Amino acid sequence: MKNFIFHNPVRIVFGKEIIPTLSSYMARNEKVLLLYGKGSILNNGIYDQVTQSLKQAGITWKDFAGIKPNPTLSQVRSAIAICRQENIKAVVAVGGGSVIDAGKAIAAGACFDGDVWDGFLKKISWPQALPLYVVLTISATGSEMNSAAVVTNEETQAKMSFYSPGTFPKVSFLDPTLQYTLPEKQTIYGAMDMMAHVLEFYFNGTPDTDVQDYFSEGLMKTIMKHLDIVLNHPKNYESRAQLVWAGTLALNGLNAAGRDKGDFSSHRIGHALSACYDLPHAETLSIVMPAWMRYVYKQDIPQFARFAREVFGLQGSENDLASKGVQAFQDWVRKLGLPLSCVDVGIRMDAIPSLANNPSIPFPLGTLKPMQSEDVESILRLSNY
Amino acid sequence: MKNFIFHNPVRIVFGKEIIPTLSSYMARNEKVLLLYGKGSILNNGIYDQVTQSLKQAGITWKDFAGIKPNPTLSQVRSAIAICRQENIKAVVAVGGGSVIDAGKAIAAGACFDGDVWDGFLKKISWPQALPLYVVLTISATGSEMNSAAVVTNEETQAKMSFYSPGTFPKVSFLDPTLQYTLPEKQTIYGAMDMMAHVLEFYFNGTPDTDVQDYFSEGLMKTIMKHLDIVLNHPKNYESRAQLVWAGTLALNGLNAAGRDKGDFSSHRIGHALSACYDLPHAETLSIVMPAWMRYVYKQDIPQFARFAREVFGLQGSENDLASKGVQAFQDWVRKLGLPLSCVDVGIRMDAIPSLANNPSIPFPLGTLKPMQSEDVESILRLSNY
Repeated sequence: MKNFIFHNPVRIVFGKEIIPTLSSYMARNEKVLLLYGKGSILNNGIYDQVTQSLKQAGITWKDFAGIKPNPTLSQVRSAIAICRQENIKAVVAVGGGSVIDAGKAIAAGACFDGDVWDGFLKKISWPQALPLYVVLTISATGSEMNSAAVVTNEETQAKMSFYSPGTFPKVSFLDPTLQYTLPEKQTIYGAMDMMAHVLEFYFNGTPDTDVQDYFSEGLMKTIMKHLDIVLNHPKNYESRAQLVWAGTLALNGLNAAGRDKGDFSSHRIGHALSACYDLPHAETLSIVMPAWMRYVYKQDIPQFARFAREVFGLQGSENDLASKGVQAFQDWVRKLGLPLSCVDVGIRMDAIPSLANNPSIPFPLGTLKPMQSEDVESILRLSNY
Repeated sequence: MKNFIFHNPVRIVFGKEIIPTLSSYMARNEKVLLLYGKGSILNNGIYDQVTQSLKQAGITWKDFAGIKPNPTLSQVRSAIAICRQENIKAVVAVGGGSVIDAGKAIAAGACFDGDVWDGFLKKISWPQALPLYVVLTISATGSEMNSAAVVTNEETQAKMSFYSPGTFPKVSFLDPTLQYTLPEKQTIYGAMDMMAHVLEFYFNGTPDTDVQDYFSEGLMKTIMKHLDIVLNHPKNYESRAQLVWAGTLALNGLNAAGRDKGDFSSHRIGHALSACYDLPHAETLSIVMPAWMRYVYKQDIPQFARFAREVFGLQGSENDLASKGVQAFQDWVRKLGLPLSCVDVGIRMDAIPSLANNPSIPFPLGTLKPMQSEDVESILRLSNY
């Protein structure tokens, strides 16, 4: 196990009928930015629940709607300008990972005089941010319980991340019933993203991480089991609740604690794909991750064999198991109807070299097998077989 | 899954050679109370490491040594008086659960004009406390990452607990090497306590808690596996590290989140035993817990069967499995050489009725099977078979 520092001060309020308590955690009589996506919350009652609670504490709000699935720097900059003009004191992000991530960048950028992108470029650090409150409507990114944000700079096509002690949400409200009416595809995308988060810490090459491995395996078994149930019974509260909480636990720092940094190769390569093709984040993962696993599994046969045994209940020799585990994961992705190759989403083979050199990808890439752009090219080509 | 609120702001600093960083998390040039037990830290170098770090930040300290294994109210009151006299600004607790628990009570009591015992009697709440820094020397209670404290009132023989938002340690330092020289018995006691914490949430009767159950099972498998290694190789860093981190995770709120309150029957009955006989905490658990499990397992056959299957790898019908799991746990306790009955520690049978009515035990007791004093009597008698 590696030395580590773990600190996660996010307060989680979880369960049914919790949204009315939102404003009880906030300062009274202030003005907040109410951030959301393309507006489904206006139709499904969530907007009304949130604003009803705000009103009860004398809190006023300025709407900022239309945050895009891969949130853009220009939207973040616009929202920061509004925060300054309107003397905004807190941000309420109602949505999934994109809205939450935008919320973090806005909350931090509003407390800083310069340009917010400098934070993504690590030119500055942001110890301070406006308080951020989250109402989660799509479980996927885990952003509701960590301090990281990912934003795309449309001008440079770079999708970059930052994290800061100041950008942990102050309180995140997780009501599984809010996800009853999600399109099936969104639920699948969410589960794919959760699995990727778990796997990127699970396959990072740190030895002697039993308690972390059991935790990861438990999350993966929970996600796969309860996704199956939810796809057949979208309003099954218990399984929705399991998916929601597993998704949050997948990226709240516990998987990371004691391990080396996660091997985020798949996320990084995926970021390049979505920066250039505006693909859904989860589809970039379903394309890259099985191919990445196949490309690197020989670096850590015991861990890939453990994966096959513990997560899929497979048996066999260590070498066989390691390969079978990758196959089982790919089969799971296929069963969900997610794309598995660049070709599946219309990316031409001659675009691969340029993708492999996208500025979203820092080289050397990854920890299990440190890679260069040639390796990324190989993985993207491998996805087509 | 039940509705829940989860919030744990403790910063964990984990690993080798971390003690020199202690004072970097503290305010400079202040005076702190340095709390410890019977003084082994004076001989094994830990005291020197801690005070060296304090000196580097200009921090002065007042020693308070001799905190007892079941910390007493009179010691806590004395230490609070010193904090007031000496204008103490923070508490540094160097030790195991008893020292940490005493530290919490002192840190809270020092910020409150009345008598600290009123907090244990729930007559007052303590939102504030002095900042508490922990250097963990024995993994067992999990107190290093929660806000709860247990103290014994010698006058009334009541062993009571409290928790408060103010009494989370600010930073806890977990260096597994500090436990290399623990007496074997202390390591065993610690593992017994950890297992009890996990089991009391695992067997509390809440349905639909897959992700929590997998987490609990992973902790138990980690504890049993790495205890075995550490007993043969006390200086095996990796296994010490696994035990330390599993012990902390066992009672940091994650096991509780989404479950009903834990069923702390075994701890409560155990508190009565140690209040009257000053037994080691873990020995009270090894006596009570297997008997409690045997007394209640029919309340939740599926969960006891799952326990047998997932933790001990047993197979069979559900009913058989449930009983076999209890037996396997009892066998594990026996293998460790821990007492399994009142008789083993010299408690006479005619003392049992009085024990079953000790003020440490609140009735009705427990959630899986709510119990009265007759049930407690039955469990204590059952321990003798």
